[in-house]
Amino acid sequence: MNPNNPKLKSWVEVPENSDFPIQNIPLGVISHRDKESVVATRIGDTIIDLHELQKLGYLKDLTFDDDVFSADSLNPLLTYGKQGTRDLRTAISSIFQINNDLLRDRDEHSLRVLKKAADVSMLFPLCIGDYTDFYSSREHATNVGMMFRDPKNALLPNWLHIPVGYHGRSSSIILSGQPIIRPKGQQRIDEQKPPVFGPTRLLDFELEMAFITYDGRPLGDSISTQDAEDFIFGMCLFNDWSARDIQKWEYVPLGPFLAKNFASSISPWIVTLDALEPYKTKGPKQDPEVLDYLKYQGAKNVDIHLEVCITPDKGEPNTVSRSNFKYMYWNMAQQLAHHTVNGCNVRAGDMMASGTISGPEPSSYGSMLELTWRGSKPIKLNDSTERKFIADGDTVTMTGYCDNGEVRIGFGEVTNKVLPAKE
Amino acid sequence: MNPNNPKLKSWVEVPENSDFPIQNIPLGVISHRDKESVVATRIGDTIIDLHELQKLGYLKDLTFDDDVFSADSLNPLLTYGKQGTRDLRTAISSIFQINNDLLRDRDEHSLRVLKKAADVSMLFPLCIGDYTDFYSSREHATNVGMMFRDPKNALLPNWLHIPVGYHGRSSSIILSGQPIIRPKGQQRIDEQKPPVFGPTRLLDFELEMAFITYDGRPLGDSISTQDAEDFIFGMCLFNDWSARDIQKWEYVPLGPFLAKNFASSISPWIVTLDALEPYKTKGPKQDPEVLDYLKYQGAKNVDIHLEVCITPDKGEPNTVSRSNFKYMYWNMAQQLAHHTVNGCNVRAGDMMASGTISGPEPSSYGSMLELTWRGSKPIKLNDSTERKFIADGDTVTMTGYCDNGEVRIGFGEVTNKVLPAKE
Repeated sequence: MNPNNPKLKSWVEVPENSDFPIQNIPLGVISHRDKESVVATRIGDTIIDLHELQKLGYLKDLTFDDDVFSADSLNPLLTYGKQGTRDLRTAISSIFQINNDLLRDRDEHSLRVLKKAADVSMLFPLCIGDYTDFYSSREHATNVGMMFRDPKNALLPNWLHIPVGYHGRSSSIILSGQPIIRPKGQQRIDEQKPPVFGPTRLLDFELEMAFITYDGRPLGDSISTQDAEDFIFGMCLFNDWSARDIQKWEYVPLGPFLAKNFASSISPWIVTLDALEPYKTKGPKQDPEVLDYLKYQGAKNVDIHLEVCITPDKGEPNTVSRSNFKYMYWNMAQQLAHHTVNGCNVRAGDMMASGTISGPEPSSYGSMLELTWRGSKPIKLNDSTERKFIADGDTVTMTGYCDNGEVRIGFGEVTNKVLPAKE
Repeated sequence: MNPNNPKLKSWVEVPENSDFPIQNIPLGVISHRDKESVVATRIGDTIIDLHELQKLGYLKDLTFDDDVFSADSLNPLLTYGKQGTRDLRTAISSIFQINNDLLRDRDEHSLRVLKKAADVSMLFPLCIGDYTDFYSSREHATNVGMMFRDPKNALLPNWLHIPVGYHGRSSSIILSGQPIIRPKGQQRIDEQKPPVFGPTRLLDFELEMAFITYDGRPLGDSISTQDAEDFIFGMCLFNDWSARDIQKWEYVPLGPFLAKNFASSISPWIVTLDALEPYKTKGPKQDPEVLDYLKYQGAKNVDIHLEVCITPDKGEPNTVSRSNFKYMYWNMAQQLAHHTVNGCNVRAGDMMASGTISGPEPSSYGSMLELTWRGSKPIKLNDSTERKFIADGDTVTMTGYCDNGEVRIGFGEVTNKVLPAKE
């Protein structure tokens, strides 16, 4: 049966409004009492140890090597490509369907395979080779252009022709839950004086989503928009932490560097593109017409509700932004086609983030820079304090889910607390 | 004995002007008739299989795991840090000294360990995690600024304060010998018209050198200029292939992307920083004074003679540039200190390139862009053809060596032929 069928139910309990119904089947890497690392999925609040599932023979019709599920990342699994992860999802969907008694009624097996979410630790799920960050929200690019350049010509001349992107640092991409240490760096506070060195005063989040690739084509070959989704495994939430003062001083002419590479953080479960299929939607009209290699067929945007929350130290959560991934001007297929049109190769486990996802309303902006309009309109929190940017002790939490009225599929969260600069 | 001692001679023959005297001992990865991949070094035209050397017990005083030398990259070796590779170089130096008969007089052993250079294939020596490209030649940055911005204010305001750098793509870094396929991409040829798509018309090389790191400190910690060289393993030649028309259209505001990530190429042997110690020299005076975290002690530049040669298809080589790594305004210790001052982590096998190495004289410029001043002064080759940029069929070869009158240590070459765009 199609794993996206909204009628499917699981014999594993799924709480109301869970991000993880049987239609999701995300993939991640966990550790638990008995294992340092193992590939897993999740239904409701139950974690499924795929290595045990395989050892017990439940995946015997698939052709995965023994060590794929005992790896410390999803990368070995990703080398099997779209068909590999698709077959795996279909198999898992079948095993956990409410009427399938194969595992359901064998307590000695299910005891080995099933863990409570509270009893496992999530690990960083990927060995990221290269990480690329796009800049694909028209509203975000326009807001930034209005603030820092010419309000009447906010978009740069290339923006409507190119899914603008740049290379980022993969070593400093971390997992939800890890602290963010406020970075130090050069800033030029007074334009008339030399630059100074110190902790960033303008620490920001950027609400983004990222996709993860399978192995692409060899160096020198391209991937068309039509084929692009065959090379995209799945998605996660992505917080592209940014230091605006460091960025402003360093970024001309070669782009952001230390303003970004101190940390980016991701949610631990990768939701497959297959699971997101029912939530596909049309993107904004692209005018002027794009060049041929960027043209595409069908609905390539995804309707994903996104929220950003700031929780002060010992305080209550404050939702500061409600956005949606469907606003993106450039879709993932266009991004990947553009990235490879010059022959650039991608590899299993590469990550490509969307760029800040800002919507049309001020309440849907995806960064403090935009939400407070460079600090000119501070946000009042429910403890009566104000924020222009992110303060030490604040926890920033991003959540995302799809809901078409029949099934809700979510991404969990990416949440990180900010610690003061060192020394 | 100090492996840098100029009096050292080897019982392995070293041709006059070889890049690889016993004072060099570079590291690389090779394949030969019996092995798919093995870590190796080179003296003269003789390749030394370090895995065999270890199996035969010649490295038994060192503490390397068995599989370090049978790996397909230097990365496992690099996790042993500076002391690890330093001890290895000292041991190799001793084994091959002219008076050491241990291996010299055991034909059955030396037959297993020694290979002729002509009988082995060089492999890509690293599994590069992250790749960073700096922009550290004042002359290059000035030339570019004069051409594309304001000749009177050629250097941007941040340039003398920051070793400007940006993230590049590691998946498309290839080995000397591999062909370069002319990339295609968007260009805006006529400023009054929409962009067009096609093969780059302005394919360029950039003469650079790159350094490779050991594991650095954890995310959140920094590396000072004083400690930086403890985290730098060695260097190689680096050709940062560039498509100038694609670059010009795409690079604002987030930096170069498809103009660079179709290919960069490196020389196969990594020369250790230890071997380069005798060639250290003072860098240019830095005025204005740099911020404290960028100050450094001692000589941190390296006197490395560099040459770039263009060889047309079936033609003769033409030397088009003679430059020197000592011209760099920002040194490697400053680059690494800057890169990590915000807490960014580096890992064993990361690569950081210098940026184009241009000297003060027009004949020492490190790119066609500068040598032909945007194509306005074409270079005449010895076959009477002219070049504004690189033509299909051209082979670009970069070489580099140090020579202090006592010992010459070289890097071999990075050489790649340009093939026409696909289709």
